[in-house]
Amino acid sequence: MNNFEYHNPTRIVFGRGVIERLSGLIPAEKKVLMTYGGGSIKRNGVYDQVMKALAGRQVLEFGQIPPNPHYEHLMEAVKLVKREQVGFLLAVGGGSVADGTKFIAAAARYEGADPWDILAKGAEVASAVPMGVVLTLPATGAESNGGAVISRHSTQEKLVFSSDHCFPRFAILDPEVTFSLPDKQVRNGIVDAYVHVMEQYATYPVNAALQDRQAEGILLALIEEGPKTLRNPKDYDSRANLVWCATQALNGLIGVGVPQDWATHYIGHELTAFYGLDHAETLAIVLPALLRNQKARKRAKLLQYARRVWGVTDADEDAAIERGIACTAEFFESLGMPTKLAAYGVSPEEAAKRVSERFAQRGTKLGEYGDIGAEQAAQILRTC
Amino acid sequence: MNNFEYHNPTRIVFGRGVIERLSGLIPAEKKVLMTYGGGSIKRNGVYDQVMKALAGRQVLEFGQIPPNPHYEHLMEAVKLVKREQVGFLLAVGGGSVADGTKFIAAAARYEGADPWDILAKGAEVASAVPMGVVLTLPATGAESNGGAVISRHSTQEKLVFSSDHCFPRFAILDPEVTFSLPDKQVRNGIVDAYVHVMEQYATYPVNAALQDRQAEGILLALIEEGPKTLRNPKDYDSRANLVWCATQALNGLIGVGVPQDWATHYIGHELTAFYGLDHAETLAIVLPALLRNQKARKRAKLLQYARRVWGVTDADEDAAIERGIACTAEFFESLGMPTKLAAYGVSPEEAAKRVSERFAQRGTKLGEYGDIGAEQAAQILRTC
Repeated sequence: MNNFEYHNPTRIVFGRGVIERLSGLIPAEKKVLMTYGGGSIKRNGVYDQVMKALAGRQVLEFGQIPPNPHYEHLMEAVKLVKREQVGFLLAVGGGSVADGTKFIAAAARYEGADPWDILAKGAEVASAVPMGVVLTLPATGAESNGGAVISRHSTQEKLVFSSDHCFPRFAILDPEVTFSLPDKQVRNGIVDAYVHVMEQYATYPVNAALQDRQAEGILLALIEEGPKTLRNPKDYDSRANLVWCATQALNGLIGVGVPQDWATHYIGHELTAFYGLDHAETLAIVLPALLRNQKARKRAKLLQYARRVWGVTDADEDAAIERGIACTAEFFESLGMPTKLAAYGVSPEEAAKRVSERFAQRGTKLGEYGDIGAEQAAQILRTC
Repeated sequence: MNNFEYHNPTRIVFGRGVIERLSGLIPAEKKVLMTYGGGSIKRNGVYDQVMKALAGRQVLEFGQIPPNPHYEHLMEAVKLVKREQVGFLLAVGGGSVADGTKFIAAAARYEGADPWDILAKGAEVASAVPMGVVLTLPATGAESNGGAVISRHSTQEKLVFSSDHCFPRFAILDPEVTFSLPDKQVRNGIVDAYVHVMEQYATYPVNAALQDRQAEGILLALIEEGPKTLRNPKDYDSRANLVWCATQALNGLIGVGVPQDWATHYIGHELTAFYGLDHAETLAIVLPALLRNQKARKRAKLLQYARRVWGVTDADEDAAIERGIACTAEFFESLGMPTKLAAYGVSPEEAAKRVSERFAQRGTKLGEYGDIGAEQAAQILRTC
């Protein structure tokens, strides 16, 4: 097991009706900027619940944060935070709103010339406006981690940053507010959480027995509960399990002391940037192909995965590994999520060319060994 | 799944050589009181490592905290903290030192007449001196939770308190410093962690799929890694796994949103108070007997436990449940830990009488249904 440090200060408030707890979680004297997306929170009652909980407070609003939030738009909120001396950011939405709000929080306190440097150059985030999250979409885990993914229209880029200062102070998780989500978003959430686990699990063994079991536990719970919640969206317990799985999949816990991959994510980000595919769609496409491409080097963990998660008892190890990978793709397909580029009208050859050109240009090196570059990305995408 | 709140602010610093990180974790201006136990830290080099890391700081010492730390002794440290205006408590040791230090932290800031009320009457802990832990014994999970167990000699009592203010700010976990532990303490730690999980798991189902998987994951890892680390105490990875399992077993995570039992612990505390048995010994004695006694009401979870943790495939459910309980006792025995009172020279009849008298006197009601009282405790202890 590798040395590690783990600190997750986000307070989780979980269950039915917990949005009313908001007023006790945000310091009374702070001016609040509430951020949200396209307005579904106004249709499903979440907006009203939040406003009721914050009655009597100074609350400004910044809406219309889209999936894959982009720099140009978020910088408008940064101006607003500075001008209005906002003291607390409240993200009400899914991972995109949470991510966008983390960037607003960091950029508003950034003292360098251009906050884009936080993403493009890894400029240090020395401070951030405190923030909290009311989660409406279980998927990214952004509600209790310090990371965010931000896009830039002008350059077709999608980049990542992370800071200890960007952990939400609290995350309010009421599974009932997710009942009205369209199937597509629920499906995306299941796949997203699943692949988050795989990025931290399917690498090489370092004898981290508990992290492995915890990762497998999330996968097993997602396999068990994901289809249930799609079949019966108002089954509270199934939805609660999905929400909690998604949080636990990317709050840092299962990744402590183990090597991590994340190549599927980085390759996927390019597919979103070039073709506008949903984040989870890119993951469902890339993961099985990447696991096959890296089969030799991920062998021990892929075998363990097949045996423990998919119950593959085949004595032939190669066959077992292949079966585990196939089960993964079949699971995504069973949720209604295609796992091939063609199903989304994208040519694998073209995607391979565009992504590998960009990786070559940037000198990108990915994966737990830090050596998946342009050539491997092209190989992987050609089989997607 | 039940509603819950989860907030664990302890920073975990884990791995080889991490004690040197201490100086960055304690504010430089604070006067430190270092607390420890019987002096093993002076023999195994931990004391020197801590002192080296804190060179140039004002460090006072309070040693000789025994297993099952007691009120009378700890109150001397409380006086010292007040007199010397200590600003930070550093517990260097196992669960007893951590627990004792939590009580010192709370009692030193307590404004009521008698700090014993924190334990005896559940008096509110409104504040506590900040503290950190350098863990030398993986077992209780005290390094990242807000709870503590304290005894009082004069009354032969062993009581519990818990406060958000008593979470350590950090926990330094270097598995290497535990290599020199006697077998007995390692065994105690494995059993303690195992039973912590069972108290949060073996109750009744509330469809908390992930919490169940996480709990089972810790049990599986303990079953796998516990015997390895006893056989080969200097195998770093096995010991690291045990340390991490013990922390995760009682940091609150697996207990969110699920019913909890803790009757084994409370009955066990009385055995320690009356007969001086080690905490873990009492757990190994009481747990199997309690599970059998409560078999009907814990049926669904005991069946799941037998199937998933012990791989019992017996189609007869009653036989499977009984096998799961038997495997539990066999596991403890295989570690060298007897599971019957007679092995410790204690008469089950007498223990049943003494403990049930005390429970009757106090009106004690335990377990996930809150109805295990004097009579059931006597039934259970008679079969121990």
